[in-house]
Amino acid sequence: MNATQRLARFLADLQYADIPEPVLARCEDLFLDWVGSALASQGAHPTPLFERYAQRMGPGDGPARMLVNGRGTSPYFAALVNGAASHLVEQDDLHNSSVLHPATVVFSAVLAAAQERGKSGRELLLASVAGYEAGIRIGEFMGRSHYRIFHTTATVGTLAAAVAVGKLLGFDREQFINLLGNAGTQAAGLWEFLRDAADSKQLHTAKAAADGLLAAYMTEDGLTGARNILEGEQGLAAGMSSDADASRLDDRLGSRWALAETSFKFHASCRHTHPAADALLHLMQREGLHHEQIAKVVTRVHQGAIDVLGRVVKPSTVHQAKFSMGAVLGLIAVHGSAQLIEFRDLALTDAAVDGFRQKVSMELDPEVDAAYPARWLGRVIVTTTDGRTLSAAIDEPKGDPGNTLSRPELEAKFLRLLAFSGARTPAEGQALIDRIWQLRDAQTLTDLI
Amino acid sequence: MNATQRLARFLADLQYADIPEPVLARCEDLFLDWVGSALASQGAHPTPLFERYAQRMGPGDGPARMLVNGRGTSPYFAALVNGAASHLVEQDDLHNSSVLHPATVVFSAVLAAAQERGKSGRELLLASVAGYEAGIRIGEFMGRSHYRIFHTTATVGTLAAAVAVGKLLGFDREQFINLLGNAGTQAAGLWEFLRDAADSKQLHTAKAAADGLLAAYMTEDGLTGARNILEGEQGLAAGMSSDADASRLDDRLGSRWALAETSFKFHASCRHTHPAADALLHLMQREGLHHEQIAKVVTRVHQGAIDVLGRVVKPSTVHQAKFSMGAVLGLIAVHGSAQLIEFRDLALTDAAVDGFRQKVSMELDPEVDAAYPARWLGRVIVTTTDGRTLSAAIDEPKGDPGNTLSRPELEAKFLRLLAFSGARTPAEGQALIDRIWQLRDAQTLTDLI
Repeated sequence: MNATQRLARFLADLQYADIPEPVLARCEDLFLDWVGSALASQGAHPTPLFERYAQRMGPGDGPARMLVNGRGTSPYFAALVNGAASHLVEQDDLHNSSVLHPATVVFSAVLAAAQERGKSGRELLLASVAGYEAGIRIGEFMGRSHYRIFHTTATVGTLAAAVAVGKLLGFDREQFINLLGNAGTQAAGLWEFLRDAADSKQLHTAKAAADGLLAAYMTEDGLTGARNILEGEQGLAAGMSSDADASRLDDRLGSRWALAETSFKFHASCRHTHPAADALLHLMQREGLHHEQIAKVVTRVHQGAIDVLGRVVKPSTVHQAKFSMGAVLGLIAVHGSAQLIEFRDLALTDAAVDGFRQKVSMELDPEVDAAYPARWLGRVIVTTTDGRTLSAAIDEPKGDPGNTLSRPELEAKFLRLLAFSGARTPAEGQALIDRIWQLRDAQTLTDLI
Repeated sequence: MNATQRLARFLADLQYADIPEPVLARCEDLFLDWVGSALASQGAHPTPLFERYAQRMGPGDGPARMLVNGRGTSPYFAALVNGAASHLVEQDDLHNSSVLHPATVVFSAVLAAAQERGKSGRELLLASVAGYEAGIRIGEFMGRSHYRIFHTTATVGTLAAAVAVGKLLGFDREQFINLLGNAGTQAAGLWEFLRDAADSKQLHTAKAAADGLLAAYMTEDGLTGARNILEGEQGLAAGMSSDADASRLDDRLGSRWALAETSFKFHASCRHTHPAADALLHLMQREGLHHEQIAKVVTRVHQGAIDVLGRVVKPSTVHQAKFSMGAVLGLIAVHGSAQLIEFRDLALTDAAVDGFRQKVSMELDPEVDAAYPARWLGRVIVTTTDGRTLSAAIDEPKGDPGNTLSRPELEAKFLRLLAFSGARTPAEGQALIDRIWQLRDAQTLTDLI
C-alpha cells in the first residue's frame, strides 16, 4: 500500500465520531469565515461575470445556491460562483506549510453538493474535514517547487474540493482512488497572471471547486481515473513538482488534524505585513502611545517581506496599499485597524495615514528570516518624538493557530465583511451567525444562507 | 512584439478570404470525420456518463446540441459531451508533429458556440481554421518533453478550443491575448491514466473543449487573463515543458496552413500498425495473393512500434487486438479491412485471422527508425507457401497529408462509423454527408446534425 492508498483508506474510514470536538468547532469557525468572505465580494468585479456565466450556461433554478445573489442553480454552478466569490477580498483562510487556501475550494464545492443531496450539517462537517485533511497534505506533498509556478489553491484545490464532495457522497476506498485520479488530471492554475494583475485568481478557485465537484459526481456515476495520480510516473508530482515528498500524504492521519493548523486572516493586507502590524499595535497599547508621538518605525522582517512589499514605494491603488508596509502600519497606528473598510476609505486619502507611512522602513532581520516560513515573527523598533527607543515582539501573528481568533472576534470580522459589501444588514448577519453556530444540528442546508 | 503577440495579431486579422480553397475544403473533410467519430461512440462507455452529467448540471434544453442524443443544452455542456464522444473510438484526426488531435477539441467547442450564436457555416470554418492553426503551433511550441507527461490534446486542446470560439465571437488582438491567458491557466491533463486504462481520455477532451469555450465566453464578458501565458516565467512552458521553442508559435503564419498537415485515421488500430498494414495490402493486391498463400510476414519497423506493440502477445480484448501487429495484419490479409466493425466482430473470434496473426513478426529497421517520427515508413517482407520472398514499401501511410483520404473514402469511413454504433441509417448518413459538403453555404448550424 502506497501513501496515496493509505490516504484513500483514511478518507473512506473517517467517521464523524473520530473527529475531536475542537476540530469540529474550528471547522464551524472556518465555515463562518468563508461565508463572510463570499458575501463580502457581492457586486465586485469579477464576481458578476461568474454569475452571468452560470445564468447563461446553467439551469434557471436548482437546489444549490449562489451566495452572492441567493439564486438557485445546479451544484456545478453554485460551486463555480461561490469559489470565485469567496477568494476575492482575500480574507479567507490559509494553511501555512501547504500554502493552500482550503475554505474557498472545499466549502464552495461541498455546500453546493450538500444542498442538492439534502445532507445535514454533520455530514457537511465530516466531508469538509476530509477535504481539509487531504488537501493540506497533498499541498505539502507537492512542495515549494510546485508553488513557484503553480497556484496551489487552484491545482491542489481541485483535489481538496473533490475529496470533500466524495466524502459527502459516502465514497469507499476504491472510489476515493478513482476520485483522486479524476480530480488530479484536471488540476491547473499558473501564477503568470500576477504580473498583469489579471482576474485569474477567481477563475482558479471557481474552477477548482467546480471541477472537484465534477470529479466526484462523475466518479460516483462510474468514471474511472488513474490509480496513482499523485505519485505515478506520469502523475501530478512527475509533471508539476521537483521536490515532492510522499511521506507528507499520510502524515499522522487520524492524530494530526491539519484543519486546526489553518490560519484566519485578520488584517485585510498582504500577510507579510501582519507580524509587524501586530507588534506595533501591541507596543502602542503597552506604552499608551498615540500615533503623533511616534517619529520612526523600523520593522525587522524576513527577506520575503522585502521582496514582496519593497516594490511599493507610494501606493496609488487600494490593492497597492495592502502591499505597503507603511500604509498598513499607518492604518494600524492612526485608526487601530486595517480592515477592508479602512483600506477602501482611508488608506489613500487620510493625511495622517500617509504621514505615518513615511516614517516606516523595513530591515532584514536574520533571526526573523531564519524562522520563516514555519514561523512569522513580528519585530518593530519605535523611536518616539521625545527620543525614546522602544521595541516589541510578536511570535505568532493574530489569526495563526496559536493566536487564533475567538468566536467574538470571528463574529466581528464576519459582520465587517458583510458591511463592506452591504450584502446583509447587521441583524441579518447576526441571525446568520446564530444559524452557523448551530451548524452541526442542521438537518438540511438549503436555507442556511 | 513577442511570438504570442504575433500569433494573437494573426488570429485577430485572419479573414475567410485569406484561407486557400484547399484548406477550406480540408476543413470540411475534417469536420465530417469529426461528426462521424462522435456519432460512432453513441451508447459506448463512458459517453453516457457525460450525457447524464450535462442533464444533471445543465439546462433542460438549449440552442446547442449533443450529437450522440440530439438533445439541446447550453454551449458549455454541448462542448463537454461532444468533446468526450468524438475521441472515444479513436478514429478522429491527428497532427503528427504537434501530437495534437485538433478536431475533438476545436469542433466540439466551436459548433456549440456557433449554434447558440446563430453563426453560419463560413463563420464556423474561419473559426475552426484559427483553432487548428493556433493549437497545432502551441502543441509544437510545448515540445516532446511536454507530451511525455501531459496529454497535449487536453492541455493545448483547451487553447485550441478557446481560440476557435474566440474567432467565432470576433475577438480583436487584445481579447486574444486575454483569451490565451484564460485558457492556458486552465490547461490540464496527465498521461498517468494510461497505466490503468482509465476513462480520463474522454474527460480530457470533454474538459478541453468545454473549458476553452468557458474561457472565450468569459473573456468576451471582460475577464482578463495573463498576457504572456505561453512564454512567461510562470506560464505554461515554464511549468510544463523543458524544450519549448517560441519560434514555433508564429511559424509561417498565413503561408503555412497547419490544418492541411492533419492526418485522417484510416485503420481502426494503433497508428504504429498502419504503415505495415498498408504495405501488406499493397503487396497482396500487386501480387494477387490470397491470405492462405502466405507463410510468413516480417514487418520492418521503428523502435517505437516495438515498444508499444511488443507488449501484446496474444490479444484477449478488442482494445489489445488494435495493438497487436499480427491481429491487424490478419484482418487486412483475410478481410481486406481493419475497421471498427472488423475489430469488434472478427479480431478475436475468426480462426483465419488468428492463424495469420501467428505468422507475423516485427524487426527493427534502421532506415525506418531513422525516418520516424517525421515519416512513418511501411516495410514488409512476405514469404509465400510456394517459397517466394516478396517485399513492399509504403512511404506515407493512408490518411497522412501526402496520401490523404479522398471524399469518397471519407464518406465510406463516415458511413462505417455511423453503422458501427447504429446512430444513423445509411440514408440518414448520406443526407448528413450532403449537408456537410454544403457547410460553407449553411446560414445557420442548429439543425445541421
